Amino acid sequence: MDLITVEEIIAAAERVADTAVRTPLLPCHWADPDRPLWLKPENLQPIGAFKVRGAANAMARIPEDVRPRGVVAYSSGNHAQAVAYVAKRFGVPATIVVEENTPAMKIEATREHGAEVVIVPITEREVVAERLAAERGATLIPPFDHPDVIAGQGTAGLEIAADLPSVELVLVPVSGGGLASGVATAIKARCPGARVFGVEPELAGDAAASLAAGQQVHWPATDRTRTIADGLRAEPSELTFAHLRKLLDGIVTVSEDEIRSTVALLAHRARLVAEPSGAVATAAYLHRAADLPRGRTVAVVSGGNLQPADLANLLG
Amino acid sequence: MDLITVEEIIAAAERVADTAVRTPLLPCHWADPDRPLWLKPENLQPIGAFKVRGAANAMARIPEDVRPRGVVAYSSGNHAQAVAYVAKRFGVPATIVVEENTPAMKIEATREHGAEVVIVPITEREVVAERLAAERGATLIPPFDHPDVIAGQGTAGLEIAADLPSVELVLVPVSGGGLASGVATAIKARCPGARVFGVEPELAGDAAASLAAGQQVHWPATDRTRTIADGLRAEPSELTFAHLRKLLDGIVTVSEDEIRSTVALLAHRARLVAEPSGAVATAAYLHRAADLPRGRTVAVVSGGNLQPADLANLLG
Repeated sequence: MDLITVEEIIAAAERVADTAVRTPLLPCHWADPDRPLWLKPENLQPIGAFKVRGAANAMARIPEDVRPRGVVAYSSGNHAQAVAYVAKRFGVPATIVVEENTPAMKIEATREHGAEVVIVPITEREVVAERLAAERGATLIPPFDHPDVIAGQGTAGLEIAADLPSVELVLVPVSGGGLASGVATAIKARCPGARVFGVEPELAGDAAASLAAGQQVHWPATDRTRTIADGLRAEPSELTFAHLRKLLDGIVTVSEDEIRSTVALLAHRARLVAEPSGAVATAAYLHRAADLPRGRTVAVVSGGNLQPADLANLLG
Repeated sequence: MDLITVEEIIAAAERVADTAVRTPLLPCHWADPDRPLWLKPENLQPIGAFKVRGAANAMARIPEDVRPRGVVAYSSGNHAQAVAYVAKRFGVPATIVVEENTPAMKIEATREHGAEVVIVPITEREVVAERLAAERGATLIPPFDHPDVIAGQGTAGLEIAADLPSVELVLVPVSGGGLASGVATAIKARCPGARVFGVEPELAGDAAASLAAGQQVHWPATDRTRTIADGLRAEPSELTFAHLRKLLDGIVTVSEDEIRSTVALLAHRARLVAEPSGAVATAAYLHRAADLPRGRTVAVVSGGNLQPADLANLLG
């Protein structure tokens, strides 16, 4: 299977420059001085998550004469909002297929960007999205299972390597694996001495189990949905798993309590609003030191979309 | 009176580059499309406020043979932590003089950076700091009343001008006026068409009253301390007022309720933890449109130090 290359990520960086924010690395003076920590605050992207990088790259790669027929995405979360946001910027019609029990607020956020929202039973999400795309000649932008999406997410890794060439460890959340695949490709190419570890919630630790088994282990969706980290409930595709297996130095998992307390810590010490999924890499830094290489560490804070009331509860 | 020059700010930018984060501009898709808004998130600086810029520039300007005698600052807030943080980085001893009713948590945060904390009655803060500096041959780093401090804060303005040369309006909080003086100097030099407005809480609107009167009007400290924006309770010095009078196109004030709701909005829509003082410029964008020029607007989010419990309350 062809993995993406750093050249594809470099090309993507130019394509996403107008849409994605060039996020800085934030040094954390409160961290262990023997393991200096920087945060990569992708929660500060428009729509509040790294997903805008992959969506922008995928959109820019659609031939200009095909774009007017629109784009389609299926997702209840940050990917949907990213595609809707990017489509609006490109002046392209977007249709987002969501499952019927998606919170009204997430549907509203997607409509705010001018996208058409189609509500279907969860089992029909993917098939309806594919049918709509076929009927309309529209382009499906998948949440992670596509080289252009992976290359777009990888631009975050390219920025880490540029801003901290001496980085020794990069911690990145793993769900479908698009972000981890892209970031690891960039880091391994630019900082060959650095190690890249994935981080998952224990309750959605399918990728950790898969890497340990040497082949993909499938967890039932009902298991994966137990975690509070609602952005980390997907499982890698064949394409992303091939990247993770080749590029990651390991995966660690964190508990629900560790995720919750890290959301509070990020608000207090880093002044960042992180959603639970966005906090797992920092949680691993704080609570899995024994399982991780020491040295200059970057933790990717991947997203920041949570309800104010939920944030207030976690600060409690 | 000599005002600072953009050349001094350019020189400061080089001096603070290793200490301050180069914060990005964050586009806000939720803002009024006729008045596009970007946030300058200075709450993401180490210690959570722009103050690290001025402290770093002032420190770098102390002759190397004088630095070992230490630095002294008087402040209960972000300036104290900035001086302590910068001193630690430079390997210079720091003494911070705070008033006796300073919250224990702020004293702890200052001690965390290795600074000596001297606790005195509020009326003696300045005089004790000056005496300590004189006794020890240490250098006093004032919170705003110094050209090096103003030039350091101005580096935020230089970055705004570089990242958005077409900016039409910059909104910046005013307390002692160091940040507003520095940012306005940079913006007026680099983007001569742009306007710069100060923002104050109504309850600490002494600078607005002073500009309206054409000369400095002094409000009793007991009046200025009524606002929840505890970082905006100082009043300009002769030096900073001279800058504000020459450079600002106006000052608007915002209410306590507007400040509170903007803290919540910044957490929800921009994923930024802003303290009340850090939210006033965004509050002015949201609630004083009628009093402000239209066009591409940057609001400086100046700081993010508030207690998690206070943030939770404001998220309501």
